[in-house]
Amino acid sequence: MSLIEDLQWRHAVKAYDPSKKVSQEDLNTILEAARLAPTSSGLQPFRVIVVENQELKEKMVMGALNPEVMRDSSHVLVFAAWDSYSDEKIDKVYDHHTDVRDLPRGRFSSYTDKIKEIYGAQTPEQHFAHTARQTYIALGLAMAQAAELKIDSTPAEGFSNEIVDEVLGLKELGLKSVSLLYLGYRDEEKDWLSAMKKVRVPMEEFTIKK
Amino acid sequence: MSLIEDLQWRHAVKAYDPSKKVSQEDLNTILEAARLAPTSSGLQPFRVIVVENQELKEKMVMGALNPEVMRDSSHVLVFAAWDSYSDEKIDKVYDHHTDVRDLPRGRFSSYTDKIKEIYGAQTPEQHFAHTARQTYIALGLAMAQAAELKIDSTPAEGFSNEIVDEVLGLKELGLKSVSLLYLGYRDEEKDWLSAMKKVRVPMEEFTIKK
Repeated sequence: MSLIEDLQWRHAVKAYDPSKKVSQEDLNTILEAARLAPTSSGLQPFRVIVVENQELKEKMVMGALNPEVMRDSSHVLVFAAWDSYSDEKIDKVYDHHTDVRDLPRGRFSSYTDKIKEIYGAQTPEQHFAHTARQTYIALGLAMAQAAELKIDSTPAEGFSNEIVDEVLGLKELGLKSVSLLYLGYRDEEKDWLSAMKKVRVPMEEFTIKK
Repeated sequence: MSLIEDLQWRHAVKAYDPSKKVSQEDLNTILEAARLAPTSSGLQPFRVIVVENQELKEKMVMGALNPEVMRDSSHVLVFAAWDSYSDEKIDKVYDHHTDVRDLPRGRFSSYTDKIKEIYGAQTPEQHFAHTARQTYIALGLAMAQAAELKIDSTPAEGFSNEIVDEVLGLKELGLKSVSLLYLGYRDEEKDWLSAMKKVRVPMEEFTIKK
């Protein structure tokens, strides 16, 4: 199937069959799509926390808009962004880049000096506004990958960031939760959205030709 | 090819062959992937402006980090988000939803009342922080679709939002530019990144298992 067909097939599933689990192999493929997502300056300023443990899920549903969707899903992916940029983080990424590419360290220093200067002039709030945006590219690609594998998913912003950050100990890792992606297999009878037509704004309204 | 192979194939191209143009059919497929992108509450709070006109591109390159990449690309997609949410915009989307689904208007009013309440308590700055995030899902899917078609692309945040908004008259449309996506065909010789290995943070560092 093409990407377009996969995107037409998927929808934000509203009820999961708790007895069906996503295989480790499929989970790894979904995570790989997220890992391959492009990010600003290639910094990948976020991590994906994989929650399968039911007890942890029960703690995270506190404050969630659709607790039963999270509870019955097979896995919860938590997209959590860096709370800030720093020279050290930038150097670590680019040292890895040069090492993998067999280039001398510092090969990209004129570029990294520039981004260090830009981020150095910004507040942590500005940093997080930027790192959080990057996570959505990976979120979208993870959803597309799940759809390619005919695995259902539900992206969610309706949850308590405070509770999720606390339960997963994200603050200590310099991370803040941004969004969740529930993975699993739909409960055909309870998922009321399954029967409904997908609706999008018409193309002639969505695009503006110049 | 699978999505993973497409994502491995793509990279942010650094030089385009200005003589090669993306076909209308392929462009439409890329826009369709962006249109099918899921968004918070299904509001699709952004539009995609398609710029092919060279004069407009020349005006937009002012303030761009990589002006020649924009200039030589076949098309520039401008992802521009709503500057704010409003009850009217929400009603318009959900009236369309119910009409397409042959449901009575107001069928989702308990839900739309809730989101109107949430957004009603927020500032336009908070609205835009949220609408801007949504655009990145569509940006990622447009890139993936381009890759599936073996069309090169370059996502860009390094440009002057003020100039782009002004040149395209976005303010009058209630939109603010967030990112650009250059589309076209790489110039193999000038695109120095073509020869380099793709680098990503190792999976064991990118994911945290709980």
